[in-house]
Amino acid sequence: MPQVPARQRILDTAFRLFYSRGLRAVGVDLIIAESGVAKATFYKHFPSKEVLVLAYLDRVDDIWTGQLRAAAEAAGPDPADQLVGLFDALGTACRREGYRGCAFINAAAEAEPGTPVHERTVAHKLAVRSWVRDLAAGAGAADPDGLARTLTLLLDGGLASGALEASPDAATCAQESARVLVSAAVTG
Amino acid sequence: MPQVPARQRILDTAFRLFYSRGLRAVGVDLIIAESGVAKATFYKHFPSKEVLVLAYLDRVDDIWTGQLRAAAEAAGPDPADQLVGLFDALGTACRREGYRGCAFINAAAEAEPGTPVHERTVAHKLAVRSWVRDLAAGAGAADPDGLARTLTLLLDGGLASGALEASPDAATCAQESARVLVSAAVTG
Repeated sequence: MPQVPARQRILDTAFRLFYSRGLRAVGVDLIIAESGVAKATFYKHFPSKEVLVLAYLDRVDDIWTGQLRAAAEAAGPDPADQLVGLFDALGTACRREGYRGCAFINAAAEAEPGTPVHERTVAHKLAVRSWVRDLAAGAGAADPDGLARTLTLLLDGGLASGALEASPDAATCAQESARVLVSAAVTG
Repeated sequence: MPQVPARQRILDTAFRLFYSRGLRAVGVDLIIAESGVAKATFYKHFPSKEVLVLAYLDRVDDIWTGQLRAAAEAAGPDPADQLVGLFDALGTACRREGYRGCAFINAAAEAEPGTPVHERTVAHKLAVRSWVRDLAAGAGAADPDGLARTLTLLLDGGLASGALEASPDAATCAQESARVLVSAAVTG
């Protein structure tokens, strides 16, 4: 039977443990033990814990960005609808078993400003906002930057709030507010 | 010269270290060393790290709730104005040197759901939302619960976002959106 490559197994394990318990709570030794690789193999792929944390954040970025885009596209071709539709990804995320909030906000809480991990979280948030800004411009918003900032605030608020209360109400409410704000920004 | 009581010194030190570095990054030994108390004195006041973390969160709650109420009251007697005015506290917080976001969102990222620390973060967020809900009801909002949820999402998004980027734009933008949403909810 073909085996999952070692790098992938380490990353799968790191993803599960870092996301559910936090970055500092999980040591490299636990990840090595739970992924069932030799110590030397681990360090060949990930020379330091920081390299592994950055690879974990890259993967979360891929997954979450993909889910946001898919939710936006499912709302149809109109960018104004897509700006509201992307909040479906928030609802789905918050309802998922083991949901613990935004991996980037959580990582930022444990990383010193100026470190590569903290900078990676900032880069992620800027990339999401830039994508939302393009949709806002496509929708004809008078102030696409302002609308993008507002909608990503609602998204971040929903992500953070979902980590505190296991309730999809925050996501529903964020989406309803997004609808009001998009409509005001596009027609206003 | 009268000395700051030991309990207060421990709590001051814990506040500074927990907020700037995170809960797990800071051990009890460091807090004992930096607050200059004897180990036995520390454990007399705080039998465990968890008790200290909870006291730290109680104090953040006092301070932040006080700042939110003061900002709301500074906006005048009209509850609709107060709902917008409370976002001034967000702007002030984000501009403060050493701002690292919301202590409660950050603590939740490091605490397992169901633990006293995690439950303390949830209780804080529910208390803030309940206060905002009362203002929304006083302002005559058709759906005070919904408006309170939206405004606290914006607040949480602003707090989280401020921890990533040292920019007061998020706070300004959250307040502008709050103005639009309050106005729509009250007159709509």
